Amino acid sequence: MTHKKVVILGGGFAGINAAKVLSGDRNCQVTVIDRGNHHLFQPLLYQVAMAGLNPSDIASPIRSMLHRYDNMFTLLAAAKDIDVDRRLVVTDFGEREYDYLIVACGASHDYFGNDRWEEFAPGLKTIPQATEIRRRVLMAFESAERTYDLDEQTKCMTFVLVGGGPTGVELAGAIAEMAHNTLKQDFRTIDATHAKVILVQGGDRILKQFPEPLSKYSKEALESLGVQVRLGDRVTDITADGVQIGDDFIAARTVIWAAGVKANPIGKSLGAEMDRAGQVIVGNDLSIAGHPEVFVVGDLASAKDQEGNALPGLAPVAIQQGRYVAKLIRRESAGKSTAPRAPFRYRDKGQVATIGRRRAVMQSGRFRLTGSLAWLGWLFIHILYLNGFRNRFFVFLSWAWSYVTFARGARLIVPKQWKNRSE
Amino acid sequence: MTHKKVVILGGGFAGINAAKVLSGDRNCQVTVIDRGNHHLFQPLLYQVAMAGLNPSDIASPIRSMLHRYDNMFTLLAAAKDIDVDRRLVVTDFGEREYDYLIVACGASHDYFGNDRWEEFAPGLKTIPQATEIRRRVLMAFESAERTYDLDEQTKCMTFVLVGGGPTGVELAGAIAEMAHNTLKQDFRTIDATHAKVILVQGGDRILKQFPEPLSKYSKEALESLGVQVRLGDRVTDITADGVQIGDDFIAARTVIWAAGVKANPIGKSLGAEMDRAGQVIVGNDLSIAGHPEVFVVGDLASAKDQEGNALPGLAPVAIQQGRYVAKLIRRESAGKSTAPRAPFRYRDKGQVATIGRRRAVMQSGRFRLTGSLAWLGWLFIHILYLNGFRNRFFVFLSWAWSYVTFARGARLIVPKQWKNRSE
Repeated sequence: MTHKKVVILGGGFAGINAAKVLSGDRNCQVTVIDRGNHHLFQPLLYQVAMAGLNPSDIASPIRSMLHRYDNMFTLLAAAKDIDVDRRLVVTDFGEREYDYLIVACGASHDYFGNDRWEEFAPGLKTIPQATEIRRRVLMAFESAERTYDLDEQTKCMTFVLVGGGPTGVELAGAIAEMAHNTLKQDFRTIDATHAKVILVQGGDRILKQFPEPLSKYSKEALESLGVQVRLGDRVTDITADGVQIGDDFIAARTVIWAAGVKANPIGKSLGAEMDRAGQVIVGNDLSIAGHPEVFVVGDLASAKDQEGNALPGLAPVAIQQGRYVAKLIRRESAGKSTAPRAPFRYRDKGQVATIGRRRAVMQSGRFRLTGSLAWLGWLFIHILYLNGFRNRFFVFLSWAWSYVTFARGARLIVPKQWKNRSE
Repeated sequence: MTHKKVVILGGGFAGINAAKVLSGDRNCQVTVIDRGNHHLFQPLLYQVAMAGLNPSDIASPIRSMLHRYDNMFTLLAAAKDIDVDRRLVVTDFGEREYDYLIVACGASHDYFGNDRWEEFAPGLKTIPQATEIRRRVLMAFESAERTYDLDEQTKCMTFVLVGGGPTGVELAGAIAEMAHNTLKQDFRTIDATHAKVILVQGGDRILKQFPEPLSKYSKEALESLGVQVRLGDRVTDITADGVQIGDDFIAARTVIWAAGVKANPIGKSLGAEMDRAGQVIVGNDLSIAGHPEVFVVGDLASAKDQEGNALPGLAPVAIQQGRYVAKLIRRESAGKSTAPRAPFRYRDKGQVATIGRRRAVMQSGRFRLTGSLAWLGWLFIHILYLNGFRNRFFVFLSWAWSYVTFARGARLIVPKQWKNRSE
């Protein structure tokens, strides 16, 4: 019997979980292709941006996650094209044939056709974006401290978050807490506690994937931290000077984009049907029409649950999809089953989001929780799902340290350029 | 009585130690000016470059180091000029007057007139340089894994360190250990243990500031790790393809510069006498001729010890000089002393350098030590001198972890660009 060649594009939640299930399977030869060398625990990326954690605390080299298994091959390369007829993937580093393909390339930000906003309002999906946001937020306080122009000072100390999902809420809470606790004593000209944090949400409530009472709690929790929550407001322009919201202009030096999401453009090369956000429409076995050997999973996939509702772009969905597909491939390459594939079923275990110290919301089925207990639950779940003992241990210690001291361990402003001459 | 205005340029070892001595002094109003926001523990910077530590483990925000004291003011700005006659410092953010000035701006790399080498051979003085070197070293292995061209593979897996001082030795040992331990299992096409590490030293021995037997031990320790040590060799050219050493060309993708050092050009604006390396020549009270209120300390200063030997550019020298000058200023601004200044005396407590796991050299006066005990001494001294309990604790844990597992906790290849579009 020959090996089945499995190619996995992307080492995010979906890809890495598929790879883990296929690890050690003697019937499959697996190649994981990613343009980065690490798997990233995105739910904690905002803490890197907020100087609470180090990038390496939430990232693990894909190679070492998989190196124990002889059937796993890791390739650092960017996928450029997929030829579903010839069954090969074209990367910037040559081609790879496959018998099964798992496309798990995720999504990036979408500025709704206003790509020029990116310069002024970075999104938060990658480590370089997190450190760029960290640099901007810390530099904003430094610039406020240096200026004697009061308008400029106000602008420096105004932070606008666009988007009221978990990322926007977590960032807003964290900036407010940083200003009130961590930085309080550090400045002489400015009072860091006067920082203005504004969360702009287009819909009528924040955290709209949670039950309504939890949205209400979250809004009040943010407001108690001094965050101004603007509901039903749409950003119409972003410049170096601030944010336009209809007729209202907010002068702000720091704007962070936590709104639109757009699927990875590689999905196009599959030739399958796509939805408006560029997600690839998949069947109930997560394969594309006409190609049962090509699966799309995670944020790139437009999949539906049993009731026909679109599945959200969440880590648990990606994890379960990755595992489901890998199990299918394992069974089929073992030649055990020619029966029709059982459809993918998403088991919704619930969700959790944090606003700040001892403030969080949690929901699982009909069970709802807010406050300290929900916050402890949030901590516990995130430690549990982190990859590897080392990351768990160091994140736990960093949190314990920050909780006691109010300090943030990674408050570094690092210049972009490394050369001597440009300094 | 009026306050004396003290300006400290630079938050390195010399500057921060001067600031600490002046903290809380009621007669002085102190401004620390640095273009970065953090004090950096440079002796461990090579571990950041070698993916063993996080940047924030060895850096602390200058603001929070000094925020307890009302007389301390921290300014993030780059010094552009010093006007010793008008007693003011010009920064990119306005001017500052002073009664006393402490110039502690340190040094950067010198390519001996071949600045174009920097592109191909970064030095190691700052965090961006450390992360750039980390990226290059890790990417070199990835590129070797991807290519089928054997010459290219050899080039990717050849690492040249230029300079046989502590930094060159530490980096050479660390790259060799990374190849033999950390990365051994991770690759499929290449055998990481075949990596070639070459240390090029112009003089006739490495670690020449140590007694001769310790240099010999270090060379043998490096060789036992597989490092090739080339003595009496001078680099005549560096390109993208490798290093020219006389008639000999070494094809190497990764070259690291650990050789020449050049003082910060700001020293020129003092109008004082300078030596060939651009260091400012100071008197035995570390002030410049004709300006007893202007002190130059640390790597920027050309100072002599009691026997007339030039003091080396080491952390202990900078620390003692910073403290000495600050104590002078404290005494004089209290108006207690008009007596002539007692000259600066450097107390040489010894030195230590590490080659790798359980391999180090240590010397204090006539006492010499090599091997495991010296290595434990090295660990202990570096933990002791790190700033703050948090950094000590996390560095200690990272080391303990790496020692047991052979892993390196910060093996991230991070792209330079943060934008979506450029990916």
